[in-house]
Amino acid sequence: MARNGKRVRYAVVGLGNIAQVAMLPAFEHAKENSELVALVSGNPEKLETLSKKYSVSVTGSYDQLEGVLERSGADAVYLAVPNSHHRRFTERAARIGVHVLCEKPMAMSVEDCQAMIDVAEDNDVKLMIAYRLHFEEANLSVVRAVQEGEIGEARAFTSFFSQDVRPGDIRTRAEVGGGALFDVGVYCVNAARYLFRSEPVEVMAYQLSGDERFHDVDETTVAILRFPDERIAQFVCSQGLAKVSSYRIVGTKGDIRLEPAYGYAVDLVCHRTIEGETEVRRYPKRDQFAPQLVHFSDCILEGREPEPSGYEGLADVRILEAIAASARDGRPVRLPELERPRRPDLDLEMSKPPVEKPEPVEAPSPTS
Amino acid sequence: MARNGKRVRYAVVGLGNIAQVAMLPAFEHAKENSELVALVSGNPEKLETLSKKYSVSVTGSYDQLEGVLERSGADAVYLAVPNSHHRRFTERAARIGVHVLCEKPMAMSVEDCQAMIDVAEDNDVKLMIAYRLHFEEANLSVVRAVQEGEIGEARAFTSFFSQDVRPGDIRTRAEVGGGALFDVGVYCVNAARYLFRSEPVEVMAYQLSGDERFHDVDETTVAILRFPDERIAQFVCSQGLAKVSSYRIVGTKGDIRLEPAYGYAVDLVCHRTIEGETEVRRYPKRDQFAPQLVHFSDCILEGREPEPSGYEGLADVRILEAIAASARDGRPVRLPELERPRRPDLDLEMSKPPVEKPEPVEAPSPTS
Repeated sequence: MARNGKRVRYAVVGLGNIAQVAMLPAFEHAKENSELVALVSGNPEKLETLSKKYSVSVTGSYDQLEGVLERSGADAVYLAVPNSHHRRFTERAARIGVHVLCEKPMAMSVEDCQAMIDVAEDNDVKLMIAYRLHFEEANLSVVRAVQEGEIGEARAFTSFFSQDVRPGDIRTRAEVGGGALFDVGVYCVNAARYLFRSEPVEVMAYQLSGDERFHDVDETTVAILRFPDERIAQFVCSQGLAKVSSYRIVGTKGDIRLEPAYGYAVDLVCHRTIEGETEVRRYPKRDQFAPQLVHFSDCILEGREPEPSGYEGLADVRILEAIAASARDGRPVRLPELERPRRPDLDLEMSKPPVEKPEPVEAPSPTS
Repeated sequence: MARNGKRVRYAVVGLGNIAQVAMLPAFEHAKENSELVALVSGNPEKLETLSKKYSVSVTGSYDQLEGVLERSGADAVYLAVPNSHHRRFTERAARIGVHVLCEKPMAMSVEDCQAMIDVAEDNDVKLMIAYRLHFEEANLSVVRAVQEGEIGEARAFTSFFSQDVRPGDIRTRAEVGGGALFDVGVYCVNAARYLFRSEPVEVMAYQLSGDERFHDVDETTVAILRFPDERIAQFVCSQGLAKVSSYRIVGTKGDIRLEPAYGYAVDLVCHRTIEGETEVRRYPKRDQFAPQLVHFSDCILEGREPEPSGYEGLADVRILEAIAASARDGRPVRLPELERPRRPDLDLEMSKPPVEKPEPVEAPSPTS
């Protein structure tokens, strides 16, 4: 290790499902440069249970954030609070010099995203958006295959990502930033962008309101994104339908379907058909959270810019906003050129997760 | 057989690929009530070769249609001429009392479809549109499963249907009715309609013009169809991308993916996931053309209305027209209620193709 044993100390802020089942356990696999030192939640019972489970001595409520960060000596926060609170917590952390690893979607508006980027820059802290699939081998293998021209010219992306949330789930409530488009659709939009390595120029969409579970949020969104150079993406995302997790990128010579595509608790399976020959590969489930910690800590320790950055988060949110506007107004919505385009040197593999040989599959279970 | 040995005598009009590889060989499996008696084509070499191969003595050019029908004593024509010629040939046949089995898409406009329905009614001949998948067991199994509520409430349909046509292919030319939307997209639209058993109320779409192979036609169309009762369908169809043939219908309890979905020369594979349990079934390739002949001949002999009727063809074409208009004008296009709604008693299984037990699959090749 070239890090002289230094570790970035993290406070985990927001102890909902993703923190509990994924990020807190991930610290065990990120010991090389990352350490869990504090927990912040609005729920005292969660704080008590989880501080014991993970031997974390410094805890506090959301109101006590600054004090908790100071007492624990935290260098960084991992934000897993509701989407609509991302901006406020980013600002509070950044203003006292604490780096921010923020869950996606980055925020509920471009305005909020820009404010988050600005506050991080003004306070000289790093800001990274937790796109775990940028650290996942099956997804990266598709990115590589597309870049290397294996399917010829990649022209069309299609995706279906749905889950069936329980009544009362936080994702059914507008006031905390729920809804299928922002919560689930962000994966489809991000995948289209990282596969095409391009920004859409126009979108059109419909949104369905679903049943009584859903309060002022979309239950289902269906959208088309038009990209430059005769490329298109379409997706359906939903929080009221049976679970489907799939995307497909089709080119002039072949197509690649990843299914499941977006999960972190299942094996992902890649179906690659090039000039009529199909190969199926299973990528075993692997921790997608620890590599994010390791990368972000490396960037903090070595003074590098993390990727996915706030600009990556903003690029998705402006598309989500446009999709919502299209559905609301019943018309296509054009997207101006991005003021700060994606880094031309963007390398999704910069985190270099350990590359295990995927298993060739004899009898795939194509859906799960 | 309850048909007293009577057979309907057919002239095949248009000897392109579909006639040669599919319909002409199908007569061998439709002997119970159908007989090939004449061939019509603009190509004398095709006429010579195919009349020998199928022992058909009466042949002629397109100009000679009426004479050929009279000389051969044909009761019916199977029209496989270019899409833009369907109306004219339907009118010529109907006016001399000959029944018409017409390939899909029915025509290039609703106006032409209505004229075809009218001329058939006025001349008391039967008109059927050759939707072969209405006679195909894998597709019918999905229809049944959806109707029986196996996936709960069916809410979202998504499809990708693409092929890569050769330069100069007839399907790349507007003047004969080519283009991806009408030629390939009609399958997606029809599947969405037969799975939802409903008509869309609004569509929006983009069309891509592709490379120099394509002359004034869409190479690729991507569309969203909004159906009543919070249901949506989306599809990509293309004639410039690698071959993909897939659809998926997702409900509140499960999803069914058919892939390949639309072929007639391959096994079709159904992936059914109900409440998390996946079952994969392979439906062996089977003649989809002979059952159409048998059904149409039965209808002629027994004086019944064939299904899929001209109204079914028109219902698809009006959606294709709306999709093209949406793409052209850059706005959603509303569809008025259909003047003659689909027959409430529509039973896709009325043709009763022999039901063979599909093979459960151990090691499916999910794409082909």
